[in-house]
Amino acid sequence: MLKSKIKNFSLFLILGAISLFFTQNATASSTPEETAFIFNTLLFLICGFLVMWMAAGFAMLEAGMVRTKNVSAICLKNVGLYSISGVMFYLVGYNLAYGIPEGGYMGSFSMFVPSEDMSTGYASHSDWFFQMVFCATTVSIVSGTVAERIKVWSFFIFAALLAGIIYPIEMGWQWGGGWLASMGFSDFAGSTLVHAAGGAAALAGAIIIGPRLGRFKDGKAIPMAASSIPLATLGTFILWLGWFGFNGGSQLAIGTMDDAVAVSDIFVNTNLAACSGLIVAMVLSQIMFGKVDVTFALNGALAGLVSITAEPLAPSATTSLLIGGIGGIIVVFGTKFFESIQIDDVVGALPVHLLAGIWGTIAVAISNTDASYYVQTIGAISVVLFVFVVSAVAMLIVKSTIGLRPTEEAEQLGSDATEVGIESYPYFK
Amino acid sequence: MLKSKIKNFSLFLILGAISLFFTQNATASSTPEETAFIFNTLLFLICGFLVMWMAAGFAMLEAGMVRTKNVSAICLKNVGLYSISGVMFYLVGYNLAYGIPEGGYMGSFSMFVPSEDMSTGYASHSDWFFQMVFCATTVSIVSGTVAERIKVWSFFIFAALLAGIIYPIEMGWQWGGGWLASMGFSDFAGSTLVHAAGGAAALAGAIIIGPRLGRFKDGKAIPMAASSIPLATLGTFILWLGWFGFNGGSQLAIGTMDDAVAVSDIFVNTNLAACSGLIVAMVLSQIMFGKVDVTFALNGALAGLVSITAEPLAPSATTSLLIGGIGGIIVVFGTKFFESIQIDDVVGALPVHLLAGIWGTIAVAISNTDASYYVQTIGAISVVLFVFVVSAVAMLIVKSTIGLRPTEEAEQLGSDATEVGIESYPYFK
Amino acid sequence: MLKSKIKNFSLFLILGAISLFFTQNATASSTPEETAFIFNTLLFLICGFLVMWMAAGFAMLEAGMVRTKNVSAICLKNVGLYSISGVMFYLVGYNLAYGIPEGGYMGSFSMFVPSEDMSTGYASHSDWFFQMVFCATTVSIVSGTVAERIKVWSFFIFAALLAGIIYPIEMGWQWGGGWLASMGFSDFAGSTLVHAAGGAAALAGAIIIGPRLGRFKDGKAIPMAASSIPLATLGTFILWLGWFGFNGGSQLAIGTMDDAVAVSDIFVNTNLAACSGLIVAMVLSQIMFGKVDVTFALNGALAGLVSITAEPLAPSATTSLLIGGIGGIIVVFGTKFFESIQIDDVVGALPVHLLAGIWGTIAVAISNTDASYYVQTIGAISVVLFVFVVSAVAMLIVKSTIGLRPTEEAEQLGSDATEVGIESYPYFK
Repeated sequence: MLKSKIKNFSLFLILGAISLFFTQNATASSTPEETAFIFNTLLFLICGFLVMWMAAGFAMLEAGMVRTKNVSAICLKNVGLYSISGVMFYLVGYNLAYGIPEGGYMGSFSMFVPSEDMSTGYASHSDWFFQMVFCATTVSIVSGTVAERIKVWSFFIFAALLAGIIYPIEMGWQWGGGWLASMGFSDFAGSTLVHAAGGAAALAGAIIIGPRLGRFKDGKAIPMAASSIPLATLGTFILWLGWFGFNGGSQLAIGTMDDAVAVSDIFVNTNLAACSGLIVAMVLSQIMFGKVDVTFALNGALAGLVSITAEPLAPSATTSLLIGGIGGIIVVFGTKFFESIQIDDVVGALPVHLLAGIWGTIAVAISNTDASYYVQTIGAISVVLFVFVVSAVAMLIVKSTIGLRPTEEAEQLGSDATEVGIESYPYFK
Repeated sequence: MLKSKIKNFSLFLILGAISLFFTQNATASSTPEETAFIFNTLLFLICGFLVMWMAAGFAMLEAGMVRTKNVSAICLKNVGLYSISGVMFYLVGYNLAYGIPEGGYMGSFSMFVPSEDMSTGYASHSDWFFQMVFCATTVSIVSGTVAERIKVWSFFIFAALLAGIIYPIEMGWQWGGGWLASMGFSDFAGSTLVHAAGGAAALAGAIIIGPRLGRFKDGKAIPMAASSIPLATLGTFILWLGWFGFNGGSQLAIGTMDDAVAVSDIFVNTNLAACSGLIVAMVLSQIMFGKVDVTFALNGALAGLVSITAEPLAPSATTSLLIGGIGGIIVVFGTKFFESIQIDDVVGALPVHLLAGIWGTIAVAISNTDASYYVQTIGAISVVLFVFVVSAVAMLIVKSTIGLRPTEEAEQLGSDATEVGIESYPYFK
Repeated sequence: MLKSKIKNFSLFLILGAISLFFTQNATASSTPEETAFIFNTLLFLICGFLVMWMAAGFAMLEAGMVRTKNVSAICLKNVGLYSISGVMFYLVGYNLAYGIPEGGYMGSFSMFVPSEDMSTGYASHSDWFFQMVFCATTVSIVSGTVAERIKVWSFFIFAALLAGIIYPIEMGWQWGGGWLASMGFSDFAGSTLVHAAGGAAALAGAIIIGPRLGRFKDGKAIPMAASSIPLATLGTFILWLGWFGFNGGSQLAIGTMDDAVAVSDIFVNTNLAACSGLIVAMVLSQIMFGKVDVTFALNGALAGLVSITAEPLAPSATTSLLIGGIGGIIVVFGTKFFESIQIDDVVGALPVHLLAGIWGTIAVAISNTDASYYVQTIGAISVVLFVFVVSAVAMLIVKSTIGLRPTEEAEQLGSDATEVGIESYPYFK
């Protein structure tokens, strides 16, 4: 009996030792749960501050692209829209997007568990921060297109509606687990949900507000020169930098080797698509116009970035070059197209974000075998139509109440003088 | 005997296995000590480079706010003060702040252990780097207020004294474990220790140096226009970005789940306070002056950031909006207040850093139950008074030796011509 | 027998328990392999985006230093060269540098294992990204020196050759395990491989292209004023920030406590060398010219950074101050030297990158006992000579085919008008 006891006990111990040994080995090479939690949180925070930095990129790009008399106003609109988006996403947007009934649709923080649970895999506020800067990015896209001819407060009211209601609804269709997600739609970091959506809102604004005074004459576009090419260049570089956070952070995790590899692949593909978009736009510009228009080059890089955003992980490097390069083509022809139909897009956000966003969404099906061209197209069109229509309604409501556009006289003087009261460059005339 | 031996041994093994099992489980879900060490070090390095980047933010903000004839000089002062602060903090400041007798008060690196010990929880140089950029931030605050009318070298001498001696002493009172810490004073990331302190030094300078020529006439403020609103906007965005490092890094650790959650909360609260400060300042500006002064908006964001800096962790999101919003109010009225008493503050650093810094310090008691309004007030006033008095003495010594202010003629010409020899924008006139 | 069995078994169990106990302890305090993999990958990604950001730094520095009529062109060259470098490094450079025969010398991604192996210690694409931005940095150095007088497409062709062939070859000599590495040459982050190499290519260009029209008259240098000091300052700050990634990431790992300590030391030394370079250049400028030339200050910081790049880890903080300070001396005298031999270097990249790069490489032997002054000198000279000669040949081929330089008339008008078609600041004249 003693023997058997010992034997049993021995067996227990041996099994225990073996099981411990293997657990041990697993532990020695893999990442503990808390470590993964910290990694994932760090990813959201680092990528989040990079995307926050994109707000500065839009501000500089737009400040460089508008005429001097509207530079202070566009700076104000950009810092203002970022702030308003942040508050609106907190007050309404987050819960609306994720459809959290127990917290109601107001006050996104009600969803946060009072004490965090390690099993979620990341700190919930780090995710909130990351989602919030995406919301602000969507709104940033609009300000450039409708620059120089929408009143500051009218723009802010629209920004609040877009950040608090319109964006969260369509974003929730996919990232909140809505009908697009159910349908098998795929949009990794938001070619449609952020960029085409922002572009659709911008298009609604451009149509309803109309072009700047003197922008088109006898059906022809009259060039209105950008005020500062270095600022536009700086803005593009900032956006490019921020995009590593935008796409890289959308992996949503870096707590395993596979996720670390994925984020790295995303960095490389994102960069190559931007390079390709820039080079293609540059070459096209040289061929078509005999000069290398630097604004086409800048927008080519941005269009490359937008194009790869819907699927920055699955494509090979060579496919990324292709996808981004087509973005570069879209920029040149898209800019000419919108000019030809007399839609005034001050910074070129419509080809960059709307058209390249749709292209990028459809291009997902090239490399991602789970995606279908049909579903991708349906998804992109649905979001674009929804945002366009609701934005148009919102714009029309603002127009019929406080008005969208300054008086002709005020527009001639520029918003800096009439609404901000501060000239952008008072010593340079 | 054998039996008992076996029993004892069995018991030992069972207990051992159980204890191993639990340790095992603990290991599988929690973070090993070395991993935490790396996380904490990474936090200091990442947040440190974000705060370093704030030096560029101050440079751009100030370059945008001064008149063109002093832009090169303010750029020089900003890169110079960052460099001087870095060297002085190394030569004197660090050891002075932390009162390290074995290393003496000179040469901060003498305190560093030759081989690092994992039990400190982070690499000591990563902490030094993080502390150094805080020191530089304090000095950056001063250059904006006293811009356009202090000689370059006179400013640098004061910068060296502030970075090497004045800041380390008052900072040591709290973060070096001095009497403020003993008293129960609470200043998470430096609303008082950095911002109000920098503001107090700036105030001493503004009073002793006096206003720019022509700034006040018959008791009324004559506006002196900022040279570049986009640069001021860029500077504000840079500071905003850097602030995630400033406040987030002040958690001092991210090696546990709780710390990761805390840093995430800090990011969200910091951002909301800035948004709120900006929106409130914008609305107030519209109501009071009929226009949306973009410089009030920018300073509103910064005041929101300063206000939340003393306690970015404990408040709820809604309380953060409140704390930051009051910062926005402070900016508008504070700017008018300093103008009314004819103190010339070129960039508005006094309301932003001094007043909102004091407000933020007192506001700690709203959400942090360990803090008392009394102690917070005493602490803030003590630091402000100390820095103000010692800075005034230092300024007076510089004044009585090499002089603080250029000649009237030199001031009219601008420092760019007289001291730097390089115009900021030679082709725009 | 039973007894002995038990004894044996007991012994086995005791040993097992002890071994488990120690393994356990090791696990509890050290970092699992996967965690280290993620840390190392994160280091490459974070430091990689910081170095990518340096491309914006060069763009702003150069946009600030050229005359207004060439600002759009220099912006275009900078975004263009970054894009071209990225694509060329993918198509040719990477495999060429690392001599990967099985993948051929074209298409760097052929080297990537289809499924990553944890034992490499990091995600291979994160390393590729980090290496790619180093390649782009080398090319960025050239654009500043030859600014304002090389045609856009001619520059891009040279950029493609430098990024795709010249840089990878010499870089492979050391980091690809070539003959310099075998010889015991030491260049931590590229004082020679990146900076002196970029400077050597720039020198070849400056000589072959010749100075700007009117730059020298009767053997004397005619100053050509920089167009925007704030942009040059911003560029310098961006480069400084990026340099933490440049040097810190070159530790190549942060998965152990020792690596985390090393990266922290590198941050501190890198910063102190920059501070010292700036201060020394500033003081020298005051002594020699009676004014504090802000461009010397900026280049002093950059030269300090270049100087410490070959060995940012081994020196003490005080030695770092010394090494960087000598960089500051080099900038002032080097600038005057190149002027005296009538070599036109628009941004001062030759003293900053070429001369300080060589100095930094030799200075490795001060603190790194494994390095010899002889080998360091041989290595630096070999790379400089190789790059200079091959770049000169490449430039001459471009010159004899599509030409390097615009016509005199076109140069007088400026590249913005003749090649880009977009003025940089159309409203400021």
